[in-house]
Amino acid sequence: MLNHHESVGKWISTIHRYSMIYKSRSFIAYGIGAGQLGFLSVLYQKDGISQDELAQKLNMDKTTTARAVQKLEEMGFVKRRPGEQDRRINLVFLSQKALDIQPHIKSTMQAWTEILVQGFTEDERDLLLKMLKKISGNAVDHIRKLEKDDTQ
Amino acid sequence: MLNHHESVGKWISTIHRYSMIYKSRSFIAYGIGAGQLGFLSVLYQKDGISQDELAQKLNMDKTTTARAVQKLEEMGFVKRRPGEQDRRINLVFLSQKALDIQPHIKSTMQAWTEILVQGFTEDERDLLLKMLKKISGNAVDHIRKLEKDDTQ
Repeated sequence: MLNHHESVGKWISTIHRYSMIYKSRSFIAYGIGAGQLGFLSVLYQKDGISQDELAQKLNMDKTTTARAVQKLEEMGFVKRRPGEQDRRINLVFLSQKALDIQPHIKSTMQAWTEILVQGFTEDERDLLLKMLKKISGNAVDHIRKLEKDDTQ
Repeated sequence: MLNHHESVGKWISTIHRYSMIYKSRSFIAYGIGAGQLGFLSVLYQKDGISQDELAQKLNMDKTTTARAVQKLEEMGFVKRRPGEQDRRINLVFLSQKALDIQPHIKSTMQAWTEILVQGFTEDERDLLLKMLKKISGNAVDHIRKLEKDDTQ
């Protein structure tokens, strides 16, 4: 039992750290940090969403999201525009520069996933994703509950 | 296939982020940051090892390790002493203060793992650990290879 306790977090943390190293190495030429990459990925799937929706999709807080979007805007990868119906909402749009590098980002990230799951069968990959999604849900639910308790 | 590519990294990153939030919240009263916790955990398993061994066990680079150990020393949780046989080696020892909080750290981290794997059977936990260990190994091997190529 004890080994289980100690290891889940350790391996997750190691995988995360090496993913950051890989991303930083891969995109340093574009000036994109590993931290901004997730935001671009979400926008490639759905362009023109609000900052709040962006934060939600990545399970990120609003401050971190605002900072990352600002950095991406400074580098010319996104543009922010107020919503037409509600001008208090910031909508985030990809620039042509961002669209131009999309194929490269996609293939680089796919290559990394292939490296990570090397030696896994298709069934094992499915199971892995199911497990990671469940763990992630457990983690998010617990922290949300703690944060809710804080404000009560 | 595409979903697989995009999701492994995303879930790992989300789990990691929420683990950091949990650790920061749990140990803020002790002044221990989420980043230093891993080092303490390794020392609880094997006290008096060298900084290099500590870095190796956590798959961390030497600079990050040196910084974390220095911070832990400043807070009175560890002491560094040169090795008796080779005085160029820095050995890291836990202080009484660190030993005093060990039970609390252990139970808090165990509680977090229990939260993460809530709803998993024992067999699923075993499989999860096996998979995470394999992914971690794949990641480490690949980056080491890239770094080796850099120096050639």
